[in-house]
Amino acid sequence: MLNDILENSFIQRLAASLPRSPLQQNGLQESDAELIRLPGTSSVLAITTDSIVEEIESGLYEDPYLIGWMTVMVNASDLAAVGADPVGILLNETLPPAASEDFLVRLQEGIRDACSATGLAVLGGDTNFASRLQMGASAVGIVPDARPTTRIGCQPGDILVASGPLGLGNAYAFVQLGRAWRSLPSSVPFMPKARVWEGRLLREFASCCMDTSDGAFATLDQLMRLNNTGFVLESKLEEFLHPVALDITGAAALPPWLTLAGPHGEFELLFTIPPERTGAFMETASTVGWTPLVIGKVVEEPGVWFTQEEKKVYVDTGRIRNLSLHTDGDIHDYIHQLLLTVEKTVSI
Amino acid sequence: MLNDILENSFIQRLAASLPRSPLQQNGLQESDAELIRLPGTSSVLAITTDSIVEEIESGLYEDPYLIGWMTVMVNASDLAAVGADPVGILLNETLPPAASEDFLVRLQEGIRDACSATGLAVLGGDTNFASRLQMGASAVGIVPDARPTTRIGCQPGDILVASGPLGLGNAYAFVQLGRAWRSLPSSVPFMPKARVWEGRLLREFASCCMDTSDGAFATLDQLMRLNNTGFVLESKLEEFLHPVALDITGAAALPPWLTLAGPHGEFELLFTIPPERTGAFMETASTVGWTPLVIGKVVEEPGVWFTQEEKKVYVDTGRIRNLSLHTDGDIHDYIHQLLLTVEKTVSI
Repeated sequence: MLNDILENSFIQRLAASLPRSPLQQNGLQESDAELIRLPGTSSVLAITTDSIVEEIESGLYEDPYLIGWMTVMVNASDLAAVGADPVGILLNETLPPAASEDFLVRLQEGIRDACSATGLAVLGGDTNFASRLQMGASAVGIVPDARPTTRIGCQPGDILVASGPLGLGNAYAFVQLGRAWRSLPSSVPFMPKARVWEGRLLREFASCCMDTSDGAFATLDQLMRLNNTGFVLESKLEEFLHPVALDITGAAALPPWLTLAGPHGEFELLFTIPPERTGAFMETASTVGWTPLVIGKVVEEPGVWFTQEEKKVYVDTGRIRNLSLHTDGDIHDYIHQLLLTVEKTVSI
Repeated sequence: MLNDILENSFIQRLAASLPRSPLQQNGLQESDAELIRLPGTSSVLAITTDSIVEEIESGLYEDPYLIGWMTVMVNASDLAAVGADPVGILLNETLPPAASEDFLVRLQEGIRDACSATGLAVLGGDTNFASRLQMGASAVGIVPDARPTTRIGCQPGDILVASGPLGLGNAYAFVQLGRAWRSLPSSVPFMPKARVWEGRLLREFASCCMDTSDGAFATLDQLMRLNNTGFVLESKLEEFLHPVALDITGAAALPPWLTLAGPHGEFELLFTIPPERTGAFMETASTVGWTPLVIGKVVEEPGVWFTQEEKKVYVDTGRIRNLSLHTDGDIHDYIHQLLLTVEKTVSI
């Protein structure tokens, strides 16, 4: 079932012949960061790597400050999802020799500020020169109690929670790539801050957790396949979508759920809490000034449903995920294809 | 003095504003891998990242198996230099969508075999698609006794040792990029194996260590600047140059020392041993079947000298290192410039 998703099966195929470590706690795809037991200690090393390649090549990220910021954040967000204490980051910068001094300065400032915002130090890196800019990084964290949060473990009845409003990542992408679209603003602010501190708190409460780096539906789809459960988003969309996501889809006369469906996420966490721990979790969150959004629940039947005009709407999230590898740059065609993935509605 | 080298000053400038970690043992440039104290343990985490970008773009590496192999080895070699026990690697693959199935299979086989050869597991990774192939990785190791080897610590009088014959990397590059050169073979075998096991053994003996990933002279130059010492290569070149390096330079009627000067290394280790530990080191090495090559000694006066026809030849290694960033693709011009870096000879 995991391998119905083209990306999953591709990763599976790449990894098939490669040696695994007996120190590794997680299986392939089972957590946002890799979890490595440290011999002779009670700690687990969390390590992850992520690059900004398509985002630059497609024009999704153009501002050097944002590129630097996101190079750190995409990795910090993986540490957040497993609840690791952040340690540091290694940078892989591939710079065009023609990059201006100002461009490089802004790039480094984005990296610096994102590191400060997430408690990551820069441990080292590697700089190369090539015709096109590419940025990558690897981030390291420690889970001192050896109890990281993984993508595995939710049960029917658990509540489904978002660390913050959803949909801003896709709203940003829609504006950035669909500039010809009439009645859209010329840009929307996008500078997500990985939920590192919230993730550490979640170690005590969450039954599973994953970040929304590839969009909320992709996250739910992956959790569904890994846990063999389903997710019903019971809250109304306007209760948990980012105001900008509602504005942008409104201005474009498109359904707001599209901002959950696209492949550019908002780097929030989606997680589940067993009912008996819900009270304590909400109380702890409120004492640190965090307002997580309860958006639905875990159900037995695999699938993802959201609520629209008092109806439960089934989404073919698998089709959505495979779509984003197929449609090639034409955003109108992509949105048209997305609209076809809502297949049936059931009255509540 | 470190910043007389353009690459060093560029890295210094990139890193200047970035936050450092109080857990990090090494300063900028002071070790091949970053060394991070693990709180509550007596272990040090060694972590490094390195990419294969220019090597692919310039045509230096074409064979997908070699590209996969080197993606692992460039990182494994950094772990070797600090003496870490290998744990695993994270891969960053940027693949062209048009890459053939056979190309991908060979790439993964190169990765797999290099991991097996060095004791590294594949912990995870990130795959992107873009117009040009780029490969990167981050490798993780553990130094259990918290006594990693760094680039710092050699003293005048220490012996200078190479883990194996030198010059194959540049001989390979010369053949690969200088194909129009008359009388050269069409290719030379190049498949370096990082000295991971030897590096672990060196923790007990070496006063400093660095791999030769950028060529032997670049390594000595960096060690010279970091330690404020000099190096005299007292052995004759034919005693420690790789036979292929001697053959290729012979066929091209070029001086063999050029294979120490070029920027494409052979991924050996260059290290120093205090005189009082030399006997024990050589004995230990021989019991494991390893034959390190004593090639010279550490001297007080900063500089690098090699021996040619009974003469001590001074090499301007700083000029060599800055050269490789300046000459742009023309190998004849590059070699001409290299030949000008031998400035004076002193009879022994």
